[in-house]
Amino acid sequence: MNTGLFITVEGGEGAGKSTVIGRLEAFLHTYGFEVLSTREPGGIDIAEQIRAVILDTRNTAMDGRTEALLYAAARRQHLVEKVIPALRQGKMVICDRFIDSSLAYQGYARGLGMKDVYEINRFATEDMMPDLTLYLDVDPEIGLSRVHANKEREVNRLDLEKLHFHEKVREGYLQLAAQFAERIVTIDANRTPDEIAGDCYEVLRRKLGQ
Amino acid sequence: MNTGLFITVEGGEGAGKSTVIGRLEAFLHTYGFEVLSTREPGGIDIAEQIRAVILDTRNTAMDGRTEALLYAAARRQHLVEKVIPALRQGKMVICDRFIDSSLAYQGYARGLGMKDVYEINRFATEDMMPDLTLYLDVDPEIGLSRVHANKEREVNRLDLEKLHFHEKVREGYLQLAAQFAERIVTIDANRTPDEIAGDCYEVLRRKLGQ
Repeated sequence: MNTGLFITVEGGEGAGKSTVIGRLEAFLHTYGFEVLSTREPGGIDIAEQIRAVILDTRNTAMDGRTEALLYAAARRQHLVEKVIPALRQGKMVICDRFIDSSLAYQGYARGLGMKDVYEINRFATEDMMPDLTLYLDVDPEIGLSRVHANKEREVNRLDLEKLHFHEKVREGYLQLAAQFAERIVTIDANRTPDEIAGDCYEVLRRKLGQ
Repeated sequence: MNTGLFITVEGGEGAGKSTVIGRLEAFLHTYGFEVLSTREPGGIDIAEQIRAVILDTRNTAMDGRTEALLYAAARRQHLVEKVIPALRQGKMVICDRFIDSSLAYQGYARGLGMKDVYEINRFATEDMMPDLTLYLDVDPEIGLSRVHANKEREVNRLDLEKLHFHEKVREGYLQLAAQFAERIVTIDANRTPDEIAGDCYEVLRRKLGQ
């Protein structure tokens, strides 16, 4: 079976995922590939309904494990209805966040445990993992300052709490990058968009050459 | 901590779960216990929203694994918002279906695998299992004939397919009863309501005596 590559892009806030994804899409087009770029719930009706339950601001009583199971459920449906069919058509699929986000955010930073969150996600994906994951590693202070660059206010207490949380998220990602070294490539995302994209092109060229 | 007992009642269609639960409630009241009898989603808002996604007839594209994850998510929320608080208040909680239903129906009869479905449910319950499970074991032909008793029509092809499915469900339950023999008590539910309830009272008396 000649299927496309399943590429995921990961990283904390302000890492520059969207910019990189736009560049990678253009890059892959120049090589003549068809590209689907997506992110959960990605317009898949059932996944959108599940995401709506997660995001409903009235659902303040939602337990962390309920949330993790709902993310896994939406992931499953988006995978079977959108990602897998595109790969089977030979398309390159670039997904903005996937299993590693659940592991870094829910598993590590929120303390549910990476091993347990991995188990429910393995169930969701039937052990299907990305062919390649680009982890855009950014210092949380730099990432958050990028996010705030267009906002006219000082950094406040909530931002500092956020900073601590994003430092945990980063620790989680770095552990994953060490654990899944054959799948996850860490890109230094503290640099300019051109430099970041340049490294990503290089990684992709090598992957396509295989 | 003096918490109540967490009792679940399991069984296929027409096993007589509702009748037994009503009797058990009355039985436990005579012993002076406060009783909460419930079933997922049990009026818990988030669990109801999740169940609505599962049951929405437009969601024909729903994958079996998505469904199993959603059941586990609704279970988690019902457990933390309703079951655990009642147990902490010292109430006896009787739950109509719980983890074994997912294992017998999704895991075994629908073929997702009991081990995998058990994993996501262990995540959902944080390894909390019922103190006692009454499995009402009924021959599927008897069970379905009870369900149909008030309907004025012959058994048709769909009923026969259903019969085969319910035979699989029963096989799943019997495997569970063998595997978790210290927790699950099998009750012969091919008999009269009085006989079935009598056996359940006996099991409960022994459990309360411990």
